[in-house]
Amino acid sequence: MGNKVISEAVIKRLPRYYRYLEHLEQEGVTKVSSGTLAGMLGVTASQVRQDFCNFGGFGQHGYGYDVAYLKRKLAEILGLDRPYDMIIIGAGNIGRALAGYKNFAAEGFRVKALFDVEVKDPLVGDVPVYGMDKLADYVKQNGCDIAVIATQKNVASDVAGRLVALGVKSLWNFAPIDLEVPSDVAVENIAMSESLYVLSYRMKNK
Amino acid sequence: MGNKVISEAVIKRLPRYYRYLEHLEQEGVTKVSSGTLAGMLGVTASQVRQDFCNFGGFGQHGYGYDVAYLKRKLAEILGLDRPYDMIIIGAGNIGRALAGYKNFAAEGFRVKALFDVEVKDPLVGDVPVYGMDKLADYVKQNGCDIAVIATQKNVASDVAGRLVALGVKSLWNFAPIDLEVPSDVAVENIAMSESLYVLSYRMKNK
Repeated sequence: MGNKVISEAVIKRLPRYYRYLEHLEQEGVTKVSSGTLAGMLGVTASQVRQDFCNFGGFGQHGYGYDVAYLKRKLAEILGLDRPYDMIIIGAGNIGRALAGYKNFAAEGFRVKALFDVEVKDPLVGDVPVYGMDKLADYVKQNGCDIAVIATQKNVASDVAGRLVALGVKSLWNFAPIDLEVPSDVAVENIAMSESLYVLSYRMKNK
Repeated sequence: MGNKVISEAVIKRLPRYYRYLEHLEQEGVTKVSSGTLAGMLGVTASQVRQDFCNFGGFGQHGYGYDVAYLKRKLAEILGLDRPYDMIIIGAGNIGRALAGYKNFAAEGFRVKALFDVEVKDPLVGDVPVYGMDKLADYVKQNGCDIAVIATQKNVASDVAGRLVALGVKSLWNFAPIDLEVPSDVAVENIAMSESLYVLSYRMKNK
């Protein structure tokens, strides 16, 4: 596929396809048409086929897709075919909630440690909590695939800078602020307030 | 503006404009150009002006926008100019984290109660926790503007159905499942796993 740039719209649909295929697999469904997937996503069957063409296409014309095969290919494309060590910066409500979120571990995203400026509990469930002063040594000794930023807004930027300086290449950001990172660092933002404001917009316009 | 349909892309940019204007206001900046806003959002200045034209346009050509005025107009458009009573269904990690999230209260989104099948603590901070058997009476007596669904995936649909039947018109859904609701009910989904899978995709493709 060379250096083809996949659009953001397609990228954002990929996890949704994956989720629907998980559901179909759990229901014991072995084959699915582009039309059915299209209905689940709210796009056209043609869009579904175009999306998969970006990655070589996975079905046989007129036959549809093998659910297990398509799910496996999507897992590869999404990078879900390997485990990831995650650390969470910020042991407040959000950080602790994420540390306990069972769905992540099921897909290979293992929360290994929480860090905070103040260590109130040494453990959240099975996950150890360390002071921020231990962060550098921890990352140097153990590595870190993904760092979750679950701090207050006002320190998120500095924390991101520290993580990047320690060689962390992937940030999942829950703080309501845009992070400036080098181009080789991947960032995803969960903008909770923005989602809530879209909801209040929709309420006003129903 | 009549019945003009505003695109999803525009709707999703509105809270980001609002956040940037809050930031500018905090920094003491009183005027901003479409070019500056464009840079903050990663779109063109022309897109910014087009976005605001959907709502009547707010600036003077060549002059830019008054920050306080634009923020106020966006607050109106987003429905942030009134308080909302929120209840949270699910007093697990996510529900408790949301109950304690201070940013919401600052914008008028007041968490009034948590509900769960099992009440382990009668209070989370200042927020009372009630059994699900109390939900119907609570909503009938107090009303509810927004219900947050922070339950396990397998009960989210039923919970949504109960809330809709009780007259709740707005659902903020944290469960990884699509909710089927009548057309007069607003829904926003926070799909955490999907965001994480987009991150693993980006890591793989850097």
